[in-house]
Parts: sequence; C-alpha cells; structure tokens
Amino acid sequence: MSKKIGMQSFILPSAPRIVSSASFVGPKEGEGPLGDLFDTVYKDDTIGLESWEQAESRMLESAVRLSLAKINKEPKDIDFFMGGDLLSQIIAAGFAARELRSPFIGVYGACSTMAESLITTAMLTDGGFSSLAVCGASSHFSSSEREFRYPLEMGTQSPPTAQRTVTGAGAVAVASSEEAVDGIFGKIRITGGTIGRVCDYGVTDASNMGAAMAPAAASTICAHLTENKLEPDCYDRIITGDLGSFGSEMLYELCKGKGYDVSHNHLDCGKMIYSKDQKVICGGSGCGCCAAVLSSTILPALEEGEIERVLFVATGALLSPLSSLQGESIPSIAHAAVIERRAV
Amino acid sequence: MSKKIGMQSFILPSAPRIVSSASFVGPKEGEGPLGDLFDTVYKDDTIGLESWEQAESRMLESAVRLSLAKINKEPKDIDFFMGGDLLSQIIAAGFAARELRSPFIGVYGACSTMAESLITTAMLTDGGFSSLAVCGASSHFSSSEREFRYPLEMGTQSPPTAQRTVTGAGAVAVASSEEAVDGIFGKIRITGGTIGRVCDYGVTDASNMGAAMAPAAASTICAHLTENKLEPDCYDRIITGDLGSFGSEMLYELCKGKGYDVSHNHLDCGKMIYSKDQKVICGGSGCGCCAAVLSSTILPALEEGEIERVLFVATGALLSPLSSLQGESIPSIAHAAVIERRAV
Repeated sequence: MSKKIGMQSFILPSAPRIVSSASFVGPKEGEGPLGDLFDTVYKDDTIGLESWEQAESRMLESAVRLSLAKINKEPKDIDFFMGGDLLSQIIAAGFAARELRSPFIGVYGACSTMAESLITTAMLTDGGFSSLAVCGASSHFSSSEREFRYPLEMGTQSPPTAQRTVTGAGAVAVASSEEAVDGIFGKIRITGGTIGRVCDYGVTDASNMGAAMAPAAASTICAHLTENKLEPDCYDRIITGDLGSFGSEMLYELCKGKGYDVSHNHLDCGKMIYSKDQKVICGGSGCGCCAAVLSSTILPALEEGEIERVLFVATGALLSPLSSLQGESIPSIAHAAVIERRAV
Repeated sequence: MSKKIGMQSFILPSAPRIVSSASFVGPKEGEGPLGDLFDTVYKDDTIGLESWEQAESRMLESAVRLSLAKINKEPKDIDFFMGGDLLSQIIAAGFAARELRSPFIGVYGACSTMAESLITTAMLTDGGFSSLAVCGASSHFSSSEREFRYPLEMGTQSPPTAQRTVTGAGAVAVASSEEAVDGIFGKIRITGGTIGRVCDYGVTDASNMGAAMAPAAASTICAHLTENKLEPDCYDRIITGDLGSFGSEMLYELCKGKGYDVSHNHLDCGKMIYSKDQKVICGGSGCGCCAAVLSSTILPALEEGEIERVLFVATGALLSPLSSLQGESIPSIAHAAVIERRAV
C-alpha cells in the first residue's frame, strides 16, 4: 500500500510517537527568551574542550544521551541514531556517533537536517525498521563562522540581513506505536510529512540566507497544503527553522503568490530564540536552532495541549564555501513534518 | 511487525527490485579492466565545465538521468533521489538535485554513501513510501585531492598505502515489488541489510584509509553474519567498497579473529577498478568507486546469473580535513545490503 500523497507528501498510518527530547545550548541562547526551557545552558562555548568542533560534537552526543536517559534508555537500546550538522563531512554527528556506538545513518540537509532526519526516522519507524530511534542536529556559532565565513579574529561586520548561527543541539526520540516506552511525552505523534525539492532563485549572498531559503520553505509548505488539500489554518502553527525576520517576510509574499496566507499562524525558530535586544540582526540560524527550539519549546507545548497540530518546516541552504567562491548561487531545500497531539 | 534482526540488521519482506543503473567515469577508470562496462567514459575530467566540482555534480546528475532514461522514466517520475558525495556540504549531490528537481534526501556516509543510500531507499520502499526512487553517489579524484589532501599542483608523492579516489558516479533505480516498471534488470532484489556502527581503531594517517575502514567493514560483515545466522559462503561474493589491497588483508585478519573466513569469496571494488600497471598503489577509493562498479559490473552479473547472492558492503571514513588537523583519529562506518537474483 502506498503511503504517498502527490509528488512529495506522505502519511504515516501508524503515527509514530515522539517520546522524548533534549536540548543543549550555548551562553547567548541561554540569555534569550527561551533560556529557561533548554535542558542545559553552557557557560562557555568550548565546554572546556580543545576546539569548537569538539564542543559541538559533544553537545549533540549529550543531547542524544539525555533524550534517552529521560526515558530510562541508553544508546545501546536504540535501532539507530540519524543526524547531521553543518560542518564539512558532518564531523559533529560522525564523532558523536562514534561515542554513542549506536547504528548510525548520517544525513546532510544543512539547516533542514532536523526535519530531514525526523521525517526519515518516522518513515523508517512506520515501515517496521525501528522501534526506538533518535534523530538530532547541531550547530555552533564559532565552528560555523570558521567553516562558512571569516575567522572570528577578523571582527568582520555583519550586514543587515545576517543571522547568527545558534550554538545548540537537539535530539528527539521516536518510538513505534507498538513499542511500550514510558515517554516524557505521551501524546505526541508524527502523522505525515513532505520531502523537499531543491529550489534556487539565484541568490548569491551568503549573508542573506533567509532570502536563499524562503523559496524552499514556500515550495514545501505550498506543496504540502495542496497535496493534502489543506488550508494554512488547519495547523495551529506553521513553524519554520531559521528564515529569520527578512526571510519570513519573503515567505509570506511567496506563499501569497500561490494562494496561501501563512502570516497569521507562522512562527520561525530563528526569530524565537533571541530577543531583539540581543543584537543578532535578523535572528538565529543553523541546524541547532530549530533542533533546540523543537526539543525545548514546541514539543512540550504540544504535550501540554497549548497547541494541537504543527507543521514543522526546516530549511537548509545547500551551499559550500567552495561553491560560493566558484560563483554558484545558493540552492536550498525544506522538509516538513506534521506533528500532532492526540489524546491517548 | 518488526523487520529488525538483532541490533543492526533488517529484512525486507517485499524484496524491492533494482530495475536500472547507470555509471559515468573519468579517463583513468575507463582505461582500467572494467572500462568497457561503464555507460560513459569521459575523456576529460572537467567534462568541459569550469571546475572539477561542477564536473562531479554533472556526472552524478547524468547517472541519475541515464538510469531513468533506460527504463523510459524521467526525474519527475521518481518519489525521491537519495544521494551524497565526499565534498563539504555534499555539493555534488545538492547541485545535482537542483537540476533534477526531484524530492531530495541528502546523506553523508563518506565512501559508504552508496550502501547507506541503497539500504535506506530499500527500507523506505518496503515501508510503502516510494514506488520508484533513485540512489546514487559520486567522487572525483581532483575535487577530492583538493578537499582532503594537497593541491594537485604541488605534485606530492603518495605513500605505499595510498589509494586513488575514483572519478566516477553511479546511480541505481529501486522500485517497489508492486510497481509495474519494465526494468533493464528483471531479477534483482534487495532482501535485507545491516546498518553500520562507527568504529575507530585510532588510525590517524589519512593516506591509509584501508586501515581506518577495515575495522568498520569487519564489524558490519560479522554483525550481519551473526545476527542472520549465516556463514560467509552463503554469499557468492562479499563485495566491499574501497578497502584496497592493504585494507582487504586487514579485513581477513579481523574477520578471522571473530571466527569468519571471508578471504575466499571477497572482492573489493577498489581493487577491481584499476589494473596493477595503472600504478594506483593500493587501488581505488571514493564514493564513486563502488557506486560505479555496482552499477556497471555487479548488477549485470547478478541479472545474468553469473552470481546469485551478494553482500554489498561500502565503507566510509568519517574524517574531515579539520578533524585531522585537530589531531583526531579517523572514525569509519560500513553499511551492508543483501542483493539477490530471484527467478521471476
């Protein structure tokens, strides 16, 4: 039986459960409006390790371990860990997987990684290939600046469209509907999703990721609504990963052009994670942004019944420093997961 | 119903079909012993484009398109393209996906990418999430040297354990058992697999990938045999991706230590793709190596009945240039797919 709906969307008849989550962030994110909701706020963004890359990897590993510890499980109890990050050859996730010693499926979707790993894990769970698995993603302001932009020591000024890469990691434990897991969440289900297609509107400015990624978000959201014959207000919230304030405005315009007004129930994790007085210009970005906000804020709100139905859409810019130097524009992609509260 | 067997292995009850494949390689690979089997041998490793990275991306895109054209399909007919490569932020696959415009699931498993994408695609197909999908991987000698080692212009000498990154791409089309596709292959099925765990024996020499990856190959092969209660000779061939000659010897020793003798029916794509007089020292490596050999050589041999049952095991070294400079050792991973011939 096909579970596909249209070109890109799918349903999950067994409705896999989200049973736990954990989030780790750096000091700047801890000072933001969601600061109290994260499991751990590090005071030092090296976590006492020798490099920012090691710190990022440790954060991701810790998030996976904590998401499992909360439900009295260990990495040896899971079918696989699926995750990724922004660094070359996803070393944060790869080295985390080395320490966890679980079966590992590495993915790369830039800042869409959390949604990519969540929907792929949910599909594999629905298909009978996992009873308990963890997906996760991380990013780190300092490792990202080094990877994609300039050495921090240069003190380069940020343009008005810039976003700040979040130092953070999030992990989400997904269980099959049959698996008897006593979760910290008992009511949250993943019921469907939409696999993204790569969009490219020719943006070449790596300091304007919101503009590069908004077309992908609009493409996936509109494909999801059209294929499922839904209107935006079928969701309490449509939550994007890290479009920031400029990219969110672009999203509204692009969706309006396709006949959908998403401006009333849209939230963006990149706008939620910092306050305006933190001077981060257009907001947060990075894999870890929506991973940490999903784990700390969105899932508990669903469990408590503050919201009932969310379309979680993470967007990624598929550039590399080399592709930009070679004059290429910035392709982007967005994947979407339908996350619902269901009374047991 | 769980389709898991043990910690890492799984079965695919519906036995998804491999219906097509395509391979593109560079000039050096074309001069090797498998030269006549590849669909296209480029005479120039830039393919007339402006950079090696663009050439690699074009090769992967072309392999996907050709694998579909052979069965009278187009990229718009598939449920998704799943693939990756070795470059930072997998730009070869990401830019290929931009041109293909299919839904895209990006993965990173270094040189294990072909097996990772093959088993994940097969699981998603078995689960009902795809009727036709393509998985693929690519690598390029010149883009890899620039990414991982030294500028080619330096003319650095290779140590005796070095392998040559294959310039090549392979794509494999996977159809559900219900989907009526008139494939170029009619008898090939994926019936199971084993998800790898990250191994690290502390090797730090990036010119000795075979040694870094052999423990992962041994771990996955032995886990597969133990969990499925099989002996190595249940397979006509156990085919690794790119251990090369040094890594293959290590594999035999490590498996022997766990009670399995795989030396009699083992082949390595890295040893198959070049002849000794091509002076490539320990053989070929890179995502594209086993992707191109699987597509051009292994699958046709299965279809023709020369072999009946193969364990395809691709190994990846999860290092980055930065992790090596920071003194980290080289973690590695191997994923395995069971590919069988079944009379219709």
